[in-house]
Amino acid sequence: MMTIRNNDFTDVVLNRHSVRYFDTEAKISREELTEMIQQTILAPSACNLQPWKFVIIDTEEGKEKLRSFFLQFNLPQVDTAAAIVFIFGDTNAYKSYRDVWNKAAEEGRISPEKRDEVLRTFLPLYEAASYEGLVTDAKIGGSLAAMQLMLVARAHGYDTNAIQGYNAKVAAEILGLDPVRYVPTMAIAIGKEDVLKNKDTVKTTRYSVDDVTTFL
Amino acid sequence: MMTIRNNDFTDVVLNRHSVRYFDTEAKISREELTEMIQQTILAPSACNLQPWKFVIIDTEEGKEKLRSFFLQFNLPQVDTAAAIVFIFGDTNAYKSYRDVWNKAAEEGRISPEKRDEVLRTFLPLYEAASYEGLVTDAKIGGSLAAMQLMLVARAHGYDTNAIQGYNAKVAAEILGLDPVRYVPTMAIAIGKEDVLKNKDTVKTTRYSVDDVTTFL
Repeated sequence: MMTIRNNDFTDVVLNRHSVRYFDTEAKISREELTEMIQQTILAPSACNLQPWKFVIIDTEEGKEKLRSFFLQFNLPQVDTAAAIVFIFGDTNAYKSYRDVWNKAAEEGRISPEKRDEVLRTFLPLYEAASYEGLVTDAKIGGSLAAMQLMLVARAHGYDTNAIQGYNAKVAAEILGLDPVRYVPTMAIAIGKEDVLKNKDTVKTTRYSVDDVTTFL
Repeated sequence: MMTIRNNDFTDVVLNRHSVRYFDTEAKISREELTEMIQQTILAPSACNLQPWKFVIIDTEEGKEKLRSFFLQFNLPQVDTAAAIVFIFGDTNAYKSYRDVWNKAAEEGRISPEKRDEVLRTFLPLYEAASYEGLVTDAKIGGSLAAMQLMLVARAHGYDTNAIQGYNAKVAAEILGLDPVRYVPTMAIAIGKEDVLKNKDTVKTTRYSVDDVTTFL
């Protein structure tokens, strides 16, 4: 299955905008949501650790859980989106690191010598890292996936809203995850824009590129 | 100017892969690099704070600075890429928050009442935030931009490598930024793949989508 409805890169990326009100009639099948995650996890991550976990909320029961810890400002998205993909970072991802690279060597995608070099270079950095360092890395990885998901969703014909306004301390536990291992990164609301209701939502602008860029 | 060379979303996103060896003959003009950043900063950020700063290194002098604090493992990219875009998070971004929303109200993109609601809801969260919290938010924002940049670069006909292996403690200072305000998030090497030299680079795989996804 391959349900890309808009393959125009320029339109997908340059015309993306945040949507707070979604068409409540527009549903997305779990098959398509799964396909979107499949395309999302092609995003890169440091050392290919893939430090992400996706909890997809597409039922009324699930949304009720979100309402218990989301800021009121973000409830329109919860109420109207076809699905909310809550992205967590996985601070334990490095514990699978040896297995991942052993598999790559077994499958002939890397030489045993190269595998040893990779493991010798990077594994000690993670094993010596503080918990805070692992949290940051996991959130950076989760954020890369979040951006890719927002674009993939648009290519599938949907709109999105990235949400960080929630009680981060309780997110993992309420959504059934180990709160030490999994750190909340961002929730992505996905659905079809309700153009009429969204009309009054502010259109954001950006600083000039010169304000944020230096050449060296 | 609009130099999108590959507008096929599926190819850009699903066939992106990390490249460690670039064709040293392939240069990218500063005009095109600037255009790529312009497209990159259309990425979303929490409260549209735009907490990112791009230092673009495309000279031998600049690369010499990178060599002084990058891990040896990542020097092939420094040596061969047409440019390295070092992305920093800006922990002071929220200090411009009031101006941004005042401007939106002045330009009629938001009502004064809505502006006041936005400022009342979010500004206190940032003003009360710890420095660590601001660092995390800035790195999340910088990571969203990083992913968008990697895809934009591919649409421009280039390949990329995301690099986090460097001495983060000295990055800002060596690249001429205030190290308290600006926190290193990721460096993106950009150029044309050297297919022959890159041949032996490991092709990474991903965990199964079922391993990283739960429905609620």
